[in-house]
Amino acid sequence: MTEDRLAPDALRRFGSQVLRAVGVPAPDAALVAESLVQADLWGHGSHGLLRLPWYAARLRSGAVQAVTEPVVLSDTGPLVLLDGRDGVGQVLADRARVLATERARQHGVGVVGVRNSNHFGTAMWFTRRAARDGYVAVLTTNASPAMAPWGGREKRIGTNPWSIAAPGPDGRVLALDIANTAVARGKIHLAQSRGEPIPGSWALTADGRPTTDPAEGLLGVVLPMAGHKGYAIAFMMDVLSGALTGSAVGTGVHGPYEPEARSGCGHLFLVLDPEAFGDRAGYEARVRQLVEEVTSVPLAQDADEVLTPGEVEDRAEAASLAAGGVVLARGALAELQRLATETGVPFPGGVRA
Amino acid sequence: MTEDRLAPDALRRFGSQVLRAVGVPAPDAALVAESLVQADLWGHGSHGLLRLPWYAARLRSGAVQAVTEPVVLSDTGPLVLLDGRDGVGQVLADRARVLATERARQHGVGVVGVRNSNHFGTAMWFTRRAARDGYVAVLTTNASPAMAPWGGREKRIGTNPWSIAAPGPDGRVLALDIANTAVARGKIHLAQSRGEPIPGSWALTADGRPTTDPAEGLLGVVLPMAGHKGYAIAFMMDVLSGALTGSAVGTGVHGPYEPEARSGCGHLFLVLDPEAFGDRAGYEARVRQLVEEVTSVPLAQDADEVLTPGEVEDRAEAASLAAGGVVLARGALAELQRLATETGVPFPGGVRA
Repeated sequence: MTEDRLAPDALRRFGSQVLRAVGVPAPDAALVAESLVQADLWGHGSHGLLRLPWYAARLRSGAVQAVTEPVVLSDTGPLVLLDGRDGVGQVLADRARVLATERARQHGVGVVGVRNSNHFGTAMWFTRRAARDGYVAVLTTNASPAMAPWGGREKRIGTNPWSIAAPGPDGRVLALDIANTAVARGKIHLAQSRGEPIPGSWALTADGRPTTDPAEGLLGVVLPMAGHKGYAIAFMMDVLSGALTGSAVGTGVHGPYEPEARSGCGHLFLVLDPEAFGDRAGYEARVRQLVEEVTSVPLAQDADEVLTPGEVEDRAEAASLAAGGVVLARGALAELQRLATETGVPFPGGVRA
Repeated sequence: MTEDRLAPDALRRFGSQVLRAVGVPAPDAALVAESLVQADLWGHGSHGLLRLPWYAARLRSGAVQAVTEPVVLSDTGPLVLLDGRDGVGQVLADRARVLATERARQHGVGVVGVRNSNHFGTAMWFTRRAARDGYVAVLTTNASPAMAPWGGREKRIGTNPWSIAAPGPDGRVLALDIANTAVARGKIHLAQSRGEPIPGSWALTADGRPTTDPAEGLLGVVLPMAGHKGYAIAFMMDVLSGALTGSAVGTGVHGPYEPEARSGCGHLFLVLDPEAFGDRAGYEARVRQLVEEVTSVPLAQDADEVLTPGEVEDRAEAASLAAGGVVLARGALAELQRLATETGVPFPGGVRA
């Protein structure tokens, strides 16, 4: 297939310049652009540069404050609570990471709660950074309503993603990033466009019946992953991220697709220092054992190999870089080119690969 | 149906006396017995008094030390690491709860890692206690291999349960307790005994094919919940519970059904104090909002109502108490009566209800 591959550097520069054009200070703009392009490199286009036009709209409306100026509401040493004052989600999550890591270095554990934040993109981007620095990290967030509680048929609770990352063997990182829905809506769209049925565990119709028809599912509501378990996890992630931090909860949280509503979402960032648990060499040996055991297991039918958490993303990144860059979806490209025109920032040319 | 209901108090006394007969000090014996009977009250018979004969066997073999004497390996203030020295899992998890709560009261956050522990029963029993005391709690553990990594066909990773609990409205508690398997093996046994097929997402055959035949599934291996997501979660729970705490990991962990092997399992207990995040009244209002929003949602077909996390257990307990006690499975009863004979502790009589 012939497709345009875009160099990550050029995309980062573009993203950064667009954000600066709508008032975001240079270092913050660079951080947001880097995190979005990284999601594209990991193969998570739904959280990649595609998001930029929505972010720009919210920045222009003032729903997101372009200049992120959090204030510290409480500080016990190992625990800090920040009021994000509607600043940029990525900038706030990264401040939380830096602060939680610093406190973990001092106390063995660091916890930073953030209230009044915004969509921060991919949770794994922040936890992986902490893991690369040698720490074990957990990040939770709440999000705008996206699924029905188990037994209900209307959206009342967010996908409320959460991520855990940890140092792995040989300088690698182990990382998971979980949305608590059975499936991303994009996959239902894909099934519809291919004329294929969907599994009965993915969605309900608008009147609350399980369905295998993607069109009906899109008019209805996505179900939680693992049934009632995913609902309970999403609920408790809202307690950790919203109720505990003093942010909005449930339907009080607004999403990145609404140009004018305050988000009100909150996050909880936990960092643990393996040094505080004893010898780092022992930690590394145990993690290596775990990796070796799972990757050497006899294979299931149709499986080529067993991967460790986060390895899918590592491989996607390596493949994108080897191929010369990132491929953006046609729709995303059109939106970004429109944004380029609006902001006067030239959109980078691709390399036909 | 006519069945014997056993009074919880009598069962607790029996469990406690049996444990004392095999060398467990009185307060620890009472704690273990209470936690087991509570699981029966919650409707989780698989984690109830049924476990007592296995525990007794491990205590008699010396695989579990009857006298639990943990030592503190490190202590930063908010973070403590305990070596459980092969003591009783429930006793160690409860020490971790008390310690983490005490530290959270001082520092806003308390983390206690436990290495060289044993099966602790139901994670929710400990996190609910912390929540009842006004704290938000997270508890993770690793466990003996029970499922295949995603793409594999042999057991290499435990169910690695984890629990989150938090204070809810009106003195109630919100709590989840998740095993990362798609299903408990008991449900596959049940389908087999009823001659019913199982969903294709539950188990693989011994040669690694998905199957809907319960007999084939029982010879093969249980799959993770939510496919690759459940595998990644179980993996990371082993990192938190085993690798980080300095305990065993992966196939190095031995389960409660092996009478003679050291367990080597580890736990991580995290407690957060809502006071440290600002006003408790605000926390309570937000949690109330969340509960009201999910429970007032229009219902899916065939649903009678929406429950909050932990409400299933609360209702089961209320129903058992109203009916006059707990019903134990026939097999469990026979095992417990044999244990009564062996230890010379009289088994309580039931009330025909």
